[in-house]
Amino acid sequence: MQALMQDRQLLVSSLLTHAARFHPRSEIISRMAEGGATRTDWAGLAARAGRLARALRRLGVRPGDRVATLAWNTTRHLELYFAVAGIGAVLHTINPRLFPAQIGWIADHGGAEVIFADADLAHLIAGQRAAAPALRAVVAMTDAAHMPPAPADALCYEDLLAAEEGGPFDWPEFDENRAATLCHTSGTTGDPKGVLSSHRACVLHAWLCCSVDGLGVNRRDRTLLATPLFHVNGWGLPFASAMCGAALVLPGPHVDGATLHALAVEERCTFSLAVPTVWLSFFRHLDAAGLDPAALPLERVMLGGAAPPRALLRRFRDAGIEAMQAWGMTETGPVAAVCRPLPEHEGLTGEALLDVRARSGRAMYGVDMRIVDEAGRPLPHDGESAGHLQASGPWVASGYHRGAGGEVLEEGRWFPTGDVAVIDPEGFVRLTDRAKDVIKSGGEWISSIQLESAAMSHAAVQEAAVIAMPHPEWQERPLMLAVLKPGAQVTAEALRDHLSGIVARWWLPDEIRFVDALPHTATGKLQKTRLRRMHLPAAAV
Amino acid sequence: MQALMQDRQLLVSSLLTHAARFHPRSEIISRMAEGGATRTDWAGLAARAGRLARALRRLGVRPGDRVATLAWNTTRHLELYFAVAGIGAVLHTINPRLFPAQIGWIADHGGAEVIFADADLAHLIAGQRAAAPALRAVVAMTDAAHMPPAPADALCYEDLLAAEEGGPFDWPEFDENRAATLCHTSGTTGDPKGVLSSHRACVLHAWLCCSVDGLGVNRRDRTLLATPLFHVNGWGLPFASAMCGAALVLPGPHVDGATLHALAVEERCTFSLAVPTVWLSFFRHLDAAGLDPAALPLERVMLGGAAPPRALLRRFRDAGIEAMQAWGMTETGPVAAVCRPLPEHEGLTGEALLDVRARSGRAMYGVDMRIVDEAGRPLPHDGESAGHLQASGPWVASGYHRGAGGEVLEEGRWFPTGDVAVIDPEGFVRLTDRAKDVIKSGGEWISSIQLESAAMSHAAVQEAAVIAMPHPEWQERPLMLAVLKPGAQVTAEALRDHLSGIVARWWLPDEIRFVDALPHTATGKLQKTRLRRMHLPAAAV
Repeated sequence: MQALMQDRQLLVSSLLTHAARFHPRSEIISRMAEGGATRTDWAGLAARAGRLARALRRLGVRPGDRVATLAWNTTRHLELYFAVAGIGAVLHTINPRLFPAQIGWIADHGGAEVIFADADLAHLIAGQRAAAPALRAVVAMTDAAHMPPAPADALCYEDLLAAEEGGPFDWPEFDENRAATLCHTSGTTGDPKGVLSSHRACVLHAWLCCSVDGLGVNRRDRTLLATPLFHVNGWGLPFASAMCGAALVLPGPHVDGATLHALAVEERCTFSLAVPTVWLSFFRHLDAAGLDPAALPLERVMLGGAAPPRALLRRFRDAGIEAMQAWGMTETGPVAAVCRPLPEHEGLTGEALLDVRARSGRAMYGVDMRIVDEAGRPLPHDGESAGHLQASGPWVASGYHRGAGGEVLEEGRWFPTGDVAVIDPEGFVRLTDRAKDVIKSGGEWISSIQLESAAMSHAAVQEAAVIAMPHPEWQERPLMLAVLKPGAQVTAEALRDHLSGIVARWWLPDEIRFVDALPHTATGKLQKTRLRRMHLPAAAV
Repeated sequence: MQALMQDRQLLVSSLLTHAARFHPRSEIISRMAEGGATRTDWAGLAARAGRLARALRRLGVRPGDRVATLAWNTTRHLELYFAVAGIGAVLHTINPRLFPAQIGWIADHGGAEVIFADADLAHLIAGQRAAAPALRAVVAMTDAAHMPPAPADALCYEDLLAAEEGGPFDWPEFDENRAATLCHTSGTTGDPKGVLSSHRACVLHAWLCCSVDGLGVNRRDRTLLATPLFHVNGWGLPFASAMCGAALVLPGPHVDGATLHALAVEERCTFSLAVPTVWLSFFRHLDAAGLDPAALPLERVMLGGAAPPRALLRRFRDAGIEAMQAWGMTETGPVAAVCRPLPEHEGLTGEALLDVRARSGRAMYGVDMRIVDEAGRPLPHDGESAGHLQASGPWVASGYHRGAGGEVLEEGRWFPTGDVAVIDPEGFVRLTDRAKDVIKSGGEWISSIQLESAAMSHAAVQEAAVIAMPHPEWQERPLMLAVLKPGAQVTAEALRDHLSGIVARWWLPDEIRFVDALPHTATGKLQKTRLRRMHLPAAAV
């Protein structure tokens, strides 16, 4: 029996329309790529997005076409988020920090005919026109006075908008399962793979972001968006902010500690989100400048993309700022699990509370999760059984753009995250390792991540990486590579002693090598594949 | 271009499964209709819902069939919520406070073949078997020891469950647009009309309930569900609580002040929701028993169903409990607008803060709203223009069960709420009247609701109702009917003087009549139709 409810599709444009109608004066503040800053609000953003939508159609962009961006966090990028998806085209965000050849490859793989690039980034695509022959237009996201030297045929964003009329735009309605965004995973191995998010996924994920147990985004928030808009839909904040009418503060091209601090204070930001690396540099700036973190207006921050060092969680706690971890990946929307304390944790303080905050997150309705053994059999949520983590839900990928990777789901519904995890009875997920990074020692698993955290808890260690070294008897044993803090000293023996107080004896690395630096991907993740090539015998890589 | 996201339907069963998997120990506490109380949790509820689903199938209930309930707020009713919808049948909740003939009419109109009734309510349906001939089975929601005398052929709920196996139930998957619940509006005029909610509507509405700016339901909550489960899906709390794993406290058949107070204190309830009438009796109990409201564990309450008297909002404020109004109707999910202060209201105290809390609510994403003039032209959100309030969204009705009322939407998408409202630039909706209750005086509108509030702000007035009296010159003029508090005295002249300090001169009632009592519907709303019959000349009714 069919219900008698209205057939209203969940479209990205409906979020913008809602914000403009019911939160017209809620601010959007942006540093711009060409310098300076702008102030507008949801009504102003919607008006400009309407002009942009008309300009896109005039450029020949049709529903289903991809429109690529190579851009920082500015209002113009935000306008593209809503205008491109709003007319039924697909916003393909490309990470400008990748190598130019990779940018060209991804642009070509996405299949966009039009790309929008910030003025300081336009040269990256100018050099890749041969790699992406389908690209027929480059739009420089600036005004006539700041046009970049290359490419010579670049169109001017502000001129395109000025040529269109400014009245209300009538956003088309279509199936919510149509693609809204395309984002390529950075991929530590193999070619990047494209995740195609639907309008439905973007809207449902926004509700998760606005929920109390999720990210808690609300109308009172002034969100400092330190997460790049080119990382999985800016972790959903453009959509969540429109849903509840929160104010947005966009830092432009610079996400250094000084810029973030200045914006947080000047714009009275209540919430921010970024990878741990950004927060580490944020605190380094505060320390160097002698600024008191407790004086910040921030009430809470979200940390995602990688497990944060415990010391970072401690800094937020000491500043009276709630630091919540969230776990997810491009293929899971991205937010799948969020770590916020439960009623049973009330009264916890100090290190005991940090123990809770250090968990990866609790499963949120919308992303079902399970752990399975090697044979695919579900394991209990007992806080002890470790298994392959799988996810399922309306904002979880069913496959990749152009069929890359083939059939990826297990049993037609479970996406294998590649992570190994434990789930406890309260639904907290604790990642113990990437499946490919776990060290399989004598039939037992050693978590490279936990060993790395243990090493980084030593005062002299700046960063550590652990990889599996082939072993004749145990199959694999851990090899640790450690970078010391400038001027700090510790012997391998002393570091092993330190570790032995934190992890089981059989987890202790067989060897510790001190190195000058560790290789990272453009998004800040350790490149373990490269480490293996550098440090293991050729036969083991 | 289709996205590559998983095709996961938003089904009511997925909420229960989530709660059981990730919040298994979160409590569900219930007073029972036959006396006593039970304690279980989401895992326990899911297990019993699984048995019930098997029992329903054994009773011959197929997808699309309606299963009616005539029941109080207990775990058994909650089990029916999930089991009936979970197998694809439709839960038809019937208000046991209606007249028996009305219950029979609604049961027949819904078309259920099976009805579940609490033991103390089974007689209501026993006397209506002739009115609802399709009903082939009555299940008494009790155990063998407490079976009611009538109907003689009633089946025993606990016996049905005991006969089924207790293992995990494999909930079927189907289209999220299928009907999950059916609820008849009480209707102050005409026959009740049935609203058929979809699984999609129930799940999306739950996200609204769990959002910070919505009802803020979260995993820390222990919700005292004083709103009946037979009122529009218990205002969504069964689904929202499962979504986030909140604990639920169900008061059973008695929602008097003493019961609610005892449960709130004993079960450390953080949140509750009910109509203003229930809260008024709650405070009367506290006052009579000399109990301090500030000692309650409640952190916030939601008031819905009718505009609360300002004095009630003041009591909550004085007790340090956040009182949030929400506006909606059976046809809008029901929650459409929620009143919580905005950043610009920070710092407001006393009466100025109450002015904000006294608004009906702010439009929430998911229910688009607009006001239109008599010709259907949209009016601005300027806080001054009053017009007919219309709503649109995925949990707003597109029509009524069995086509009652014909085509109800305007322009194929706008549901006419029958309310007259003003919307201000921040999205706050202020109801000024029911369209049919507004007094049209000389081309201008007089709000009966505002006149009633003004009268009730007089210390001697217990309740007031204002209806339109035909007038030769002005077309309509207000007639006020007032009930005085026991022992209190005021003359019509003195009351008019009081009103003249609050409303415009031309709003003053032409006549004030003092009466002993005012007629209400079963859900506590003033029956203005009846008042018109009682107090107006026959030609004007």
